[in-house]
Amino acid sequence: MPRFFIAGTNLAGGMAVLRGRDAEHVRVLRLRPGEDVILCDGQGTDYKCRLVYADKEQVEAEVIEVVPCPAEPSVAVTVLCGLPKGDKTDYIIQKCVEAGASEILFFQSDRCVARPDKPEKKLERWQRIAEEAAKQSGRGIIPRVGWAGDFAGALDVAVKKDLGLFLYETGEREALNAVLEANKTVQSAALITGPEGGFAEFEAKLARIAGLHICSMGERILRCETAPVVAVTALMYATGNLS
Amino acid sequence: MPRFFIAGTNLAGGMAVLRGRDAEHVRVLRLRPGEDVILCDGQGTDYKCRLVYADKEQVEAEVIEVVPCPAEPSVAVTVLCGLPKGDKTDYIIQKCVEAGASEILFFQSDRCVARPDKPEKKLERWQRIAEEAAKQSGRGIIPRVGWAGDFAGALDVAVKKDLGLFLYETGEREALNAVLEANKTVQSAALITGPEGGFAEFEAKLARIAGLHICSMGERILRCETAPVVAVTALMYATGNLS
Repeated sequence: MPRFFIAGTNLAGGMAVLRGRDAEHVRVLRLRPGEDVILCDGQGTDYKCRLVYADKEQVEAEVIEVVPCPAEPSVAVTVLCGLPKGDKTDYIIQKCVEAGASEILFFQSDRCVARPDKPEKKLERWQRIAEEAAKQSGRGIIPRVGWAGDFAGALDVAVKKDLGLFLYETGEREALNAVLEANKTVQSAALITGPEGGFAEFEAKLARIAGLHICSMGERILRCETAPVVAVTALMYATGNLS
Repeated sequence: MPRFFIAGTNLAGGMAVLRGRDAEHVRVLRLRPGEDVILCDGQGTDYKCRLVYADKEQVEAEVIEVVPCPAEPSVAVTVLCGLPKGDKTDYIIQKCVEAGASEILFFQSDRCVARPDKPEKKLERWQRIAEEAAKQSGRGIIPRVGWAGDFAGALDVAVKKDLGLFLYETGEREALNAVLEANKTVQSAALITGPEGGFAEFEAKLARIAGLHICSMGERILRCETAPVVAVTALMYATGNLS
């Protein structure tokens, strides 16, 4: 069934009225009255609708069923990544959205090679990548892509979640599966991963002091753009969101 | 500690003798007698060695310790992918090696858009990508990249493993976590994922008849290049190889 995000649609009285870009979308898909579509509000709710009227300007559809989008995981995962070089950001965004992340935030850390003066400038493009990936993978929300500032800013975001994981390659760490098994029912989680050069020791220390779980993801060294999607996948698997 | 794969090295009598490319490697790293290195034989064994002699042609090192490479997972995972378009193969190879796969095989299936006459020609380049990824991620083997032929060829490989999973998007499927939880101690596993257009129904039927587990990876639609790495990660997590 065709499925698309709707923007600012009027869903009152059991009817959906689409105009502008949304009506255009129906026209492009050559959908006709009598056909069913799923309209997703981008907030995690799916409206299964049957088209009753469609012209160039306006589409009207009867709402048949309102359900939580089945693709949305039970846990809202915020991925926090030390800003990598080049277009690795794009890859991280696309794959984390597919894997089920709800929010992707980049930040500046000690060993970041990339040091953009104005990362805010990139946000629009990053957000578009998230939107495309959300549509393609059938998500119920468009995950937000943002900038968390410096390392302290990233920690500040992470400590507000039910579960905060700091993925680190060396030293004393908890096993990822032990931590996840003990936190299967969390509503929110943050995963912090590093840039190309990893984290400085003082950053790991700060994360520990802040109360995050310092976790290992095994002995294989993961690239900075691979670690986030592996971590999100492990979390989705452990919380029953990958079946 | 510097770590590298060695080719055809003489490891007799508690001494490693490196010549040719391996000796050159030691020279490039500016390693001197007294320094320690890990020499990996590419078969899953690490030789911790101390250099005792190094010149342009030959390096001699005393073997201090012989251990199974800690980065190698307890399960040998063969990833079987319907041949995707363009350079998605490269991405699949790199990420699956990082995630812990032991073998990556492509095959031709009904909905493959890419139909190279001679995929064998690409094998050399694909194998180089696997080798680079293995080095970078500290693997103890260089995973083999190969061509499994047609869909029947892929099934034939999969049924020979302790556990065979066919990742499929629709219809009657087992939950991935249920299957993995029941098979935590397997020695070998095969994961079959599709090309861009997914699998035809008759292919899923054949896989079922062949005795593979037809599994879901949740409601989010994964791109053909994302599904293999997500599947390998889930398997590594479930078998205790991601901590």
